[in-house]
Amino acid sequence: MSFGESHGKCVGAVIDGCPAGLPITEEEIQRELDLRKPGTSLVTTMRMEGDRVEILSGVFEGFTTGAPICLMIRNADIDSSSYQNILNTPRPGHADYTAFKKYRGFSDYRGGGRFSGRITASYVMAGAVAKKLLRHVLNIEIIAYTLEIGGIRAGPFTLDEARAVRYSNEVRTPDIDSAELMKQKILEEKARGDSVGGIVECVALNVPVGVGEPVFSSLDSELSKALLSIPAVKGLEFGAGFEAARKKGSENNDQYVIEGVEVKTTTNYSGGILGGLSNGMPIQFRVAFKPAASIGKPQKTVNVVTMKESDIVVPGRHDPSVVPRAVPVVESVTALVLADLTIRGGLIPPVLEGNSPLRQTRS
Amino acid sequence: MSFGESHGKCVGAVIDGCPAGLPITEEEIQRELDLRKPGTSLVTTMRMEGDRVEILSGVFEGFTTGAPICLMIRNADIDSSSYQNILNTPRPGHADYTAFKKYRGFSDYRGGGRFSGRITASYVMAGAVAKKLLRHVLNIEIIAYTLEIGGIRAGPFTLDEARAVRYSNEVRTPDIDSAELMKQKILEEKARGDSVGGIVECVALNVPVGVGEPVFSSLDSELSKALLSIPAVKGLEFGAGFEAARKKGSENNDQYVIEGVEVKTTTNYSGGILGGLSNGMPIQFRVAFKPAASIGKPQKTVNVVTMKESDIVVPGRHDPSVVPRAVPVVESVTALVLADLTIRGGLIPPVLEGNSPLRQTRS
Amino acid sequence: MSFGESHGKCVGAVIDGCPAGLPITEEEIQRELDLRKPGTSLVTTMRMEGDRVEILSGVFEGFTTGAPICLMIRNADIDSSSYQNILNTPRPGHADYTAFKKYRGFSDYRGGGRFSGRITASYVMAGAVAKKLLRHVLNIEIIAYTLEIGGIRAGPFTLDEARAVRYSNEVRTPDIDSAELMKQKILEEKARGDSVGGIVECVALNVPVGVGEPVFSSLDSELSKALLSIPAVKGLEFGAGFEAARKKGSENNDQYVIEGVEVKTTTNYSGGILGGLSNGMPIQFRVAFKPAASIGKPQKTVNVVTMKESDIVVPGRHDPSVVPRAVPVVESVTALVLADLTIRGGLIPPVLEGNSPLRQTRS
Amino acid sequence: MSFGESHGKCVGAVIDGCPAGLPITEEEIQRELDLRKPGTSLVTTMRMEGDRVEILSGVFEGFTTGAPICLMIRNADIDSSSYQNILNTPRPGHADYTAFKKYRGFSDYRGGGRFSGRITASYVMAGAVAKKLLRHVLNIEIIAYTLEIGGIRAGPFTLDEARAVRYSNEVRTPDIDSAELMKQKILEEKARGDSVGGIVECVALNVPVGVGEPVFSSLDSELSKALLSIPAVKGLEFGAGFEAARKKGSENNDQYVIEGVEVKTTTNYSGGILGGLSNGMPIQFRVAFKPAASIGKPQKTVNVVTMKESDIVVPGRHDPSVVPRAVPVVESVTALVLADLTIRGGLIPPVLEGNSPLRQTRS
Repeated sequence: MSFGESHGKCVGAVIDGCPAGLPITEEEIQRELDLRKPGTSLVTTMRMEGDRVEILSGVFEGFTTGAPICLMIRNADIDSSSYQNILNTPRPGHADYTAFKKYRGFSDYRGGGRFSGRITASYVMAGAVAKKLLRHVLNIEIIAYTLEIGGIRAGPFTLDEARAVRYSNEVRTPDIDSAELMKQKILEEKARGDSVGGIVECVALNVPVGVGEPVFSSLDSELSKALLSIPAVKGLEFGAGFEAARKKGSENNDQYVIEGVEVKTTTNYSGGILGGLSNGMPIQFRVAFKPAASIGKPQKTVNVVTMKESDIVVPGRHDPSVVPRAVPVVESVTALVLADLTIRGGLIPPVLEGNSPLRQTRS
Repeated sequence: MSFGESHGKCVGAVIDGCPAGLPITEEEIQRELDLRKPGTSLVTTMRMEGDRVEILSGVFEGFTTGAPICLMIRNADIDSSSYQNILNTPRPGHADYTAFKKYRGFSDYRGGGRFSGRITASYVMAGAVAKKLLRHVLNIEIIAYTLEIGGIRAGPFTLDEARAVRYSNEVRTPDIDSAELMKQKILEEKARGDSVGGIVECVALNVPVGVGEPVFSSLDSELSKALLSIPAVKGLEFGAGFEAARKKGSENNDQYVIEGVEVKTTTNYSGGILGGLSNGMPIQFRVAFKPAASIGKPQKTVNVVTMKESDIVVPGRHDPSVVPRAVPVVESVTALVLADLTIRGGLIPPVLEGNSPLRQTRS
Repeated sequence: MSFGESHGKCVGAVIDGCPAGLPITEEEIQRELDLRKPGTSLVTTMRMEGDRVEILSGVFEGFTTGAPICLMIRNADIDSSSYQNILNTPRPGHADYTAFKKYRGFSDYRGGGRFSGRITASYVMAGAVAKKLLRHVLNIEIIAYTLEIGGIRAGPFTLDEARAVRYSNEVRTPDIDSAELMKQKILEEKARGDSVGGIVECVALNVPVGVGEPVFSSLDSELSKALLSIPAVKGLEFGAGFEAARKKGSENNDQYVIEGVEVKTTTNYSGGILGGLSNGMPIQFRVAFKPAASIGKPQKTVNVVTMKESDIVVPGRHDPSVVPRAVPVVESVTALVLADLTIRGGLIPPVLEGNSPLRQTRS
Repeated sequence: MSFGESHGKCVGAVIDGCPAGLPITEEEIQRELDLRKPGTSLVTTMRMEGDRVEILSGVFEGFTTGAPICLMIRNADIDSSSYQNILNTPRPGHADYTAFKKYRGFSDYRGGGRFSGRITASYVMAGAVAKKLLRHVLNIEIIAYTLEIGGIRAGPFTLDEARAVRYSNEVRTPDIDSAELMKQKILEEKARGDSVGGIVECVALNVPVGVGEPVFSSLDSELSKALLSIPAVKGLEFGAGFEAARKKGSENNDQYVIEGVEVKTTTNYSGGILGGLSNGMPIQFRVAFKPAASIGKPQKTVNVVTMKESDIVVPGRHDPSVVPRAVPVVESVTALVLADLTIRGGLIPPVLEGNSPLRQTRS
């Protein structure tokens, strides 16, 4: 579970149900967090956060203990003064209005509070543990990247290129040429006080067959639920996705073949999921992000106290596009879902043994 | 929760947490079920099911009691013989292979068993109660319709037309001209032993502001989870959806205005959801269905016992397109999510009072 | 989960999460249900129920499939006429008043409705599957018996005697001499239109070390929650229980010893539970049942409509003591909790393999 | 939910689902924590903890926001060195052995780790918020006190005396004379290196009728589950409890009467719970605590690595009786359960309005 607010004291996560015996360090988690960290390039927000993660519980002598793992980062660089004027005039495209109405004025409005993209730092912390677990036990690898930003789509690339290239550029795309175009597009719209949306694609490799619990905890159900919990996500498609809606069954059904000693399909229009269960092919899906709601241009709003229409210029520092920073968030959320379902499915035991240093010392 | 299998004894649902005091009859539930019923036209499967729902518990003297409501239909028209040959040769595009591997041969393979589209009858039963509840207490109306089938998209239409027209034609589309074209397309592919996919759009009206629980039970998260539990769904988008990924913030942010005494937005690119909470505008989303996996054409599969490649012609009777029958299923699932979240949000009380006949008699 | 009412159409249960591959038949479940069945002797209620259980889903060719298992018995012998007069005059000691107030008149009041002891039939159905699972996979055995009725306590007995003797007598006690005294006591109070309470003791053997999840799903927490869901239970103690409150640490701590290759304790004052986890010793606890609330004597009540005090003679047929019939209920509830926690703890896999006939046939 | 370990960095709690608009301060929570704090008298452990609670999230400008509330205390006074020798030789009566076996050596063994009584500090933190909520909205008052220690039972007292007197003495009993005897008993056993058990009684006043959800979340089920999550609890009884097992129905049924405009019962043998729902009378129950497992006397244990029997003298500083410090813990746990069930039952709204300073300022 997640806790914390954008401009509160901290953002944190508590992981319950993580198996005992997983080696994990603050450094490993920090590495993932740094990928999401703002202020690292021109194309993202200038907010400089220290974002040092602290493991508060559940890890002892370098291994998880089976107890709840509490992870936390303190919020350091906070300037809330500019948010005073959004108190009664909700920013278009943000949760200000809906939160104000739901909580009747009691929600923490500063920087979007509980609804801020900053909350996704808690997904990344927890996701770092989930990633390590999946890699450690099942050799599962999760690779997300920017497929499209501001209408510019990454050129053709292989998965190996995606793995190698995506974090080498500020927009986290697997194709260097497109990376440059995307960056130009972002800076261009930033200069106009505007923002752009985009699409993140994610692939999970080595997921065993049968992950997912029918009916309501199917793999795609749980992934959808988790991915739609990322702010700014407005769409999601698995495998052929919306394109499948325009295909015939004879075109869309993936045909089975034998590859070595394994059953594979010749195509992967299903995105690796059949009947809500993984089928042994790569899990593949795309997530649509809307353009960042915070823009420099004047917009129309309503003063919710006086109930008069009003103009607003949104304060604060913002990402012209959330897409690059969303890449590690999508990976994290995917890892959390896969960890949860592989544990439920008995594919990861409650205690990981092996030749751990701890075990050596202790016995 | 849902239980039952395609070719087992029954399909059923147990609803827990429904408020006491809701008037509901088997006839009302049956009416919704009939909209989903197969065998009603040329464009759907020929399986003739009686599908008479029975209320087994939780309703007394015509009103819900607050106790769990068990609803069930017995499976009548069952011919499982043709499924014998899929035992070891999974049908492409179905859950046969994933279920076989997950349950190592113990799952009920007949007609897809637990993974069959027939399971959605349980969503519709339960959804009928949820719809009634939402209408009764909050005047919420849910309208789904076929937006696209086999690449043919419904022409322009108003919501009033959608409400009036959709159930007047076999494909459940709001535009009569498109309906005819869609039907032709379906029959054409059916004749070729093939199938077509499509898109269902859904609109929910009169949803109060603030429905949804941040972060992990947001309105779009919960809708996504539930919608992806419908077999054959491969994509989902809210409001502008994937199109939003290509827009600028200044184009995509819905501007606030005053309409009468209410805050509205001039556009609804958000699909009525901001920060995971309803914003008072219509909830609007689209669901992509892949073409039905069961087709008459020969396909490639693998015998999972001998591990040899093999050809298969899929047995049984099937829908050339699941889309028309999916329309009431999408409505039902939407109703279930909205009922759950409005109850959690305190918008529906645990007991519905008012001048019920029951209360009159009793006092 | 459980559904149904005393005088409604049925009582049933849906089991979610049962591993695939467990052989189970209606006959096995029926056998357990028959132990709880009313009308089998003079010392219990005269209501004659057929109580034939039907497996509605989740079992295929004699094995569980991993899908939800719905079990149901139809209510046959129903005479609700005598309950008309309790509509507005709640019976002392029953849930009539609390249910009426909570549901404001909408609850099914006939025979206690949802609050009736008849609901425990659903525990026994589900418990039969849990018992089979525990026995099949972990060789866990659960033995409950009447320790005390109407102040008469069973004489000294061994666990072997308890296993052999308890179901040989109507009061389900491990000591034949006490059985006769208890029966006399029950009949004596029955003749006076009164009822008696008692204590059921339960022992679970072969529970592996470490069952239970700290902190909130500890073994004793979950057992307590489940046992207090049995109507008429007013107290519960593990091992030395309330007596432990009067002991010193040096008297109450169980000392560790080696027995063969296993760690055991010389005494079992902990009741086999330390820190909320099983410790390898027998799980042992006692459950206090109040005397049945339904008695023939006139009692004082209040008409909740007129708000005037009133006398009432409770209608219907009743157990002079619920204790004998509660014995299989306590066993069932214990089995459900142990099954749940051993599955969660990874001690029972999601699919049970082995040389099942099904597997033989299929491959 | 709770996190943290005895000798880890902290102990904390995250409260999810607390209504927005509740005024709460760190001081109020601290006050409750101080009641549980060790080192405050001769009769409890000498461990001196600062135990300053910090509200990390979910509270803004003095009011809850509806977001998760994270509360934490840092562990200050930690001396783990003495625990090295219990690594392989589990202390009798503690969770050392069961935790070691369950987590195969990975659990944090220092001071009992996750199984330490120190974890109950997280119950008290969270309980302080729940208490405030219940008092603020429903005027519910929860009063626990020591009924018995080391076989010495408090003399007769009224509830008013209990309210006034219990926190005036070190043993938290409502009767001053007994307090002195209990204290003598504790010190006497402490001097002998031994410990004593006892019984805590708890009363909750002004609980509305109908709190609790049948069947599995009944008021007594949920209370039992929560109370058995307190370390050292071995028994529990509601109202007449085990005594009820020896009574007749005619003696045990509470008779209804009219008191003013309300329905009451002349006695309260039910402990305020009928059919798992509150009946408007005081909720009343007793909790049995075993004597503290940590004693100064030598005990028998087993080295779990060498599998040889061994003697152990338990290291560390300990309570000769946990009972006095358990009093606020029992109150807290009761508050948490009542808060949860009153929220679920719609008796507490998701937003608390009223003339809050916040609302004044904002509008």
